[in-house]
This record gives sequence, C-alpha cells and structure tokens, in this order.
Amino acid sequence: MPLQPTRTVEELRELQRLTGDDDGAQRVAWTETWVAAREWLRGRLDGLGLEYEVDPAGNQWWTLPGRLPTALLIGGHIDSVPNGGWLDGCLNVLAGVEVMRRLAEAGEPAVTVRLVSWADEEGARFGRSLFGSSAASGTMADQDELRELTDKDGNPLPDTLRAHGVELDRALEAHAQLATAGAYLELHIEQGPVLEDLGLPLGVVLGTYGVQRHAVRFTGQSAHAGSTPMDRRRDALAAAAKLALEIRPIAVRHGGVCTVGRVVTKPGIVTAVVGECEILLDQRHLDAGTLAEMLAEAKGASERFAAEENVEVEWERIWQIEPILFDPELIDFADAAIEDVAGASHRLPSGPLHDAAEVARIGIPTVMIFVQSLRGLSHTKLEDTKPEHLELSVEALDRLTSETIDWLAARG
Amino acid sequence: MPLQPTRTVEELRELQRLTGDDDGAQRVAWTETWVAAREWLRGRLDGLGLEYEVDPAGNQWWTLPGRLPTALLIGGHIDSVPNGGWLDGCLNVLAGVEVMRRLAEAGEPAVTVRLVSWADEEGARFGRSLFGSSAASGTMADQDELRELTDKDGNPLPDTLRAHGVELDRALEAHAQLATAGAYLELHIEQGPVLEDLGLPLGVVLGTYGVQRHAVRFTGQSAHAGSTPMDRRRDALAAAAKLALEIRPIAVRHGGVCTVGRVVTKPGIVTAVVGECEILLDQRHLDAGTLAEMLAEAKGASERFAAEENVEVEWERIWQIEPILFDPELIDFADAAIEDVAGASHRLPSGPLHDAAEVARIGIPTVMIFVQSLRGLSHTKLEDTKPEHLELSVEALDRLTSETIDWLAARG
Repeated sequence: MPLQPTRTVEELRELQRLTGDDDGAQRVAWTETWVAAREWLRGRLDGLGLEYEVDPAGNQWWTLPGRLPTALLIGGHIDSVPNGGWLDGCLNVLAGVEVMRRLAEAGEPAVTVRLVSWADEEGARFGRSLFGSSAASGTMADQDELRELTDKDGNPLPDTLRAHGVELDRALEAHAQLATAGAYLELHIEQGPVLEDLGLPLGVVLGTYGVQRHAVRFTGQSAHAGSTPMDRRRDALAAAAKLALEIRPIAVRHGGVCTVGRVVTKPGIVTAVVGECEILLDQRHLDAGTLAEMLAEAKGASERFAAEENVEVEWERIWQIEPILFDPELIDFADAAIEDVAGASHRLPSGPLHDAAEVARIGIPTVMIFVQSLRGLSHTKLEDTKPEHLELSVEALDRLTSETIDWLAARG
Repeated sequence: MPLQPTRTVEELRELQRLTGDDDGAQRVAWTETWVAAREWLRGRLDGLGLEYEVDPAGNQWWTLPGRLPTALLIGGHIDSVPNGGWLDGCLNVLAGVEVMRRLAEAGEPAVTVRLVSWADEEGARFGRSLFGSSAASGTMADQDELRELTDKDGNPLPDTLRAHGVELDRALEAHAQLATAGAYLELHIEQGPVLEDLGLPLGVVLGTYGVQRHAVRFTGQSAHAGSTPMDRRRDALAAAAKLALEIRPIAVRHGGVCTVGRVVTKPGIVTAVVGECEILLDQRHLDAGTLAEMLAEAKGASERFAAEENVEVEWERIWQIEPILFDPELIDFADAAIEDVAGASHRLPSGPLHDAAEVARIGIPTVMIFVQSLRGLSHTKLEDTKPEHLELSVEALDRLTSETIDWLAARG
C-alpha cells in the first residue's frame, strides 16, 4: 500500500475532535485527555505487527525490526499546551505513523525503524519541558528539583507521574532505548513566519539556537516627577529603554535574535521617576561563539548606558543552553527530500527547542523538517498549516526516512 | 517679643516626637494621630487672644482682627503621608504660628491676619488630595465621586469625615472663609534638589506646574522570541522605549519636565516579543501654551515611532490641571524678603501641587516660599532641612507677612 498523506490530515482532525474543545487542543501531559490520546494513538498502529513498549520515562515506542539492529528513530509528541494548536507535536507522530504503515507493508527494512512518542515535551503542567526525551538522552540532571515541583493545584510531580505508571527515580532507565539508535528524524510545524514569507512549504532545520537568558536590573534614584529637574535625574528606565533598543542592531549584525519580553518599573507610579527597572533579555544564536559575542556586546552596552544615566546595572543569568547542531549529511538528505517533493528547500535554525535537540546533543545524527506555519502562530487554537503543505511534509518525511535507512545500512 | 525662629524648630521636633515613630510622621488625615496633632497645634496658639474656628470642611482657622476686615492668610497643613517626613506641611503651619505670636504681641495690625491649617492636603487615606483647600476655594467639583471613596479597609469617606465632625454635603460652605481674603502666603520645603544644587537656602515660587497625564498604549503582535526574525517583529516595547527616551529632549527644549513612571508589558514573558506595552506619561510646565506644545510633540513622536515599528498607538488622558501662576507683586515681595534674610534668592516653579494653588486659582493674590530640601527627598522619613535654613525660612515668612500687610492696607 502506498503512502497516503491525506490520511494523516484526516487523523489530525480526528485527534482534534477527540481531545480538543472550542479553546483548542487539551492534551496536557499527565492528564486523562493525554492518556486518551495515547490510547487512541496506540489504536492507530494496531495490526501492523510492530513491537510496542512504554519505557520508564513514559515514552511510547513502536519497533519494526530490520535486518540490522541499528535503529532509525522517528519522533514526536502527542501532548499539547492547554488551549493549544491542532498540529504542534502530533503532526510529527502521525506522519511517523503513516511512514511506519508503508514500511510495515513493504517487508523487513534494511535497518530497524522505531517510532517514539515522547512524554511531556511541553512541560505545561509542571513547568519542565522535554521530560521524556531528556530522560532518554540522560541529560535530565535536575531530578532533585523535579521532586519538588507541583502543579497549580499543589499536586507533586512524582505522585502524578506514579499515577501514570512512571517512577521519577527510574526515569533515566529510558536511556537504554537509545543504545541502538543510529539516526533521529523529526517533522514539526515551523511556529515562525520564515517559510510563509519565502512562499515555501518546507525547510530543513540546521539545529536549535543556543540561548542566553538574563535579568538585567538598572538602579537609579526614585524622585518626584514634578520637582526633579531633567538634568538631576538618575532614571533607571532611560538606561533600560536604551538597552531594549540596542539589542536589536546587535541581533541583526550577528544574524541571531534578541528579545526584551518583560519590563518592571519601581516604584511604578506616574508621579515618580523610575528608581529601579528590571528587564528580561533573551538572546539566541546557532553559533556558540557568536552568541557569546552578542552577550558581551549587550553587557558592554548596558554598562555604557548605565554610566550615561548615572545608574547602576547588574546582570543575573536565568538560564542558558548551548546551540545544538544537526547532522550535516542528514541535513543534505532532508534538503534533497524537500526539493523532490516541493521543488525548493530552505535551511533555517529553530528558535524553539525540540525533543530532537535532546537526542542530537548526545551525538546521535539528527535532523528536522519544518513545514510552514500560517502567520507564524503556535501554542494557540489559531495555529494552522495548509492541508496540502501537511501532505507534502508527510511525503518529505517518508523520502527522508528511505534515504536514511539506506545511509544507515551502508554504514553497517 | 521678637520673632523666635529657633522655637519653630523645637516645635517641629516636639510634633515629630508626639505624632511620629521610627518609620516617620504618621499624621494621616482623619485618624486619631491627626486629631492629636490638631489639638496640640491648637494648644500652641492658646493665650494669644485669637479667634478660633473649624470650618465645615474641617479646616482650622485662627484670626487676629485688624483695622481693616481684608484678611491676609497664612496657610499650611498638619497632615502627613504615612511614614512621612517631619517638615512637609507642618513647617508652614508652625512658621505661621510664630508669625502670629509676633503679630499678636505687636497690637492690632493694619489688616486682619488669619492662620489656616488645611484639612487633608495629602489625601493619603482616601486618595483625594487638597480636600480642605479645594472645599474653601469652591473648586471641589467631584463630590459625587468622593461619596463613593473608601479607604483600604473599606470605610466610606463620608462616614469617616462625619466621625470627625465634617459633613461632606456641607463642605463647600467653607468657601465663606475666603470672602474677605486679600492675599495668601505659604512656606514649604522644596521637595526637590534645585535650591540645594544652587547652594541657596530659600527661593520664591512662581506658580505650580500645569500637568498633562496620559496612558499611552502601543499594540503590536506578541510572537515567539526564538522563531520570529528581527525584521518580522511588531514589537510594542520598541516603540514605547523610543518614546520614553524622546520625552526627555522635549522637556529640556521647553524648560519643563516629562516622566515615564510606569511600563507594563504583555504578555510580559521572557520567551515572547512584547505584543502590548502601556506607559504612563506625566508632563509639566508653568506655561499652558508650552505644555500643550510638549503634549503635541510627544503625541507626534509616538505616532512616528508607532509607524516605524508597525504598531498601533492610543492615548488616554488620566488627569490634567492648568498651570496656576502666583501674584507678580507678591513674588517681588517674597524675593526681597528672601534677599534680606539670606542674601540671595531664586525664582522657581513648583512641581508638586499645594493648597496655595487652590487659593490662587480663584484669583486671590498668592505666593509661596520654598526652603531647601536636603537631597531633594520628601514623603519619607529621610526628608530633612538644615535647622539654620528652617530658621531663615521663618524669618523670610515673617518679613513677607509684614510687607503684604502694608500692601493690603495701602489698597484699602
């Protein structure tokens, strides 16, 4: 039976009917709706003769044994944010389902092929994203912190996981699943506007951005807005405003992105010059050295502005992650597959993290395909992609799978 | 008995002991501490043979009848903000007490002289400042709103005033007190850094700034901080940051002050470009036409920045008041009095409003004297003025009083 990409679009719509409502998708991990989605997904693959297991981190695996034990992995996640879109995460899994159907009909493949639906990519309930994939990759170094996490109703993470058959203390045993992994493929909606701008349905992802995230606090002197002459002010907001503008040419110059997403002013009243202003700064780039330069330039600029405004500045790191680059050969294969099905391809970085980054960072050759997002929207019920583009994306993943099987088989 | 300015400093310290604590002054209007301060103040003036009354707005009046019924008024307020300073408001009243002592000893003055301690200048408990003086001036146009005000514990303003002998419905009857008023004098701490910068103890106030106060809301598009290229953003914060910086040259060019005291960003998270940014803008100038120009320039700039950033901008007026100018002849008298006692004077506008503005705006010739504030601080226990400067201020008020009595007498 040949590949039927229209079936993937139908199944995406069915999943949305079964697990969404008027506000969008509701498949938050570790909830009844998520369990229902997992059971429904399992039903999709029944009868194909695949081996099924759930690993100690809650990831679902379907295995089609091949002539070689080396495994090609196709991954995605069935969980969503609350009021989420109909494609984020589940497109990947359902496209993988369609590819597995074709392969299972075609007989024993040259290498083993496995579909994985990662547990809790979004971290929507407890605030810890990439749960299942980081357990499998072994990068989950924050188990002590995870033990203390609760959801908004006060339920501890370990108790909730246990109710779903997952013991936090054993989650890292999922790492055994990657022992035979030879390559990892993931299809995802872009969640950004680049492909739509270019008029292209598909693109190949070079890797995920490294991120430097800081709170930058300027401290001047609160003073009466009426009685303090302009030249006597130590206005913390003025320095912060200069930095909020300066990060933009820094990003453009280096080809990355920089964002000030939050500003808090104190005392924050209309009758007082701002005495303290804290901004949250997020900087991203695909090259670690360039990211470090972007950070150094922002720090230098903040100190210059602080001096100009006679205020103090302090930086506090909130979070950081190194850039994670995908495999050059797999990038070429993905480019070729996309050109075959869509006529033209485009190479772009991924701003958001994905499960693919967790797999790639431990050295397993990885690549992702992005399909165009309409208006760049995601994590909202407005998230959308044209059906014909979804179909092309399933075809591209299928071709990439075939190429990668051959590549792995040739490597032995 | 000659004027004893040192006594004023002693009395200020005594009042602070009686009605303050480790956190500062606690004479919030319509509280027991405020009542105690009023009673203590009344005791200071006992035995001088002055007529005493409390008007329907709760203002305390002491009258020294003169040969003419035309009255020179000396005013201040005994109430403070919570955790306030030891000088704001009560310096004026206690300096007036000392002047009244000298005048009462000297025999019948050429015109009637009255000391007034206005009720609730600060508005600290219910959020409505200048209560007593606006009732007397007749400018209190918001009685329907006042009826709905409650303090933070839910006590309605009318009930609280009634417990202190004031019927809100009758407060405007205080207007009768100004029927004979020929001039109004007020001494106050500067609450700003100008006189300290100039090394001058005293200055004469030209009037109170007109104020234009607006909420300015920029609306762009929230977008993922990682997946949205810099050139595709509609960043509401960028336009707001430009305006927060641009208001400064506008203020400097026109000799006024402009302040952005608050910034609120939405969604306000580190991973999203700011979709909506609201800032509070306060603009002040002593000239109504120039204030209007400053406002027009800020509006024009906001529209330019909105266009540059591809966002929308809306302005909403929060509050406004016209500039209120003091009397040119009284300004000259105050200047001369200050030069006499301190060697040099300086003319400056008042950023904050004062009871004097309420009196001046209905046409009663008015002037204020400012005494230097250390570090420009006020509304905090750190508020301070050198004792020798306080003494000079009492002397200047006394000389200004004498000059103004003669002026009023000559006018008949």
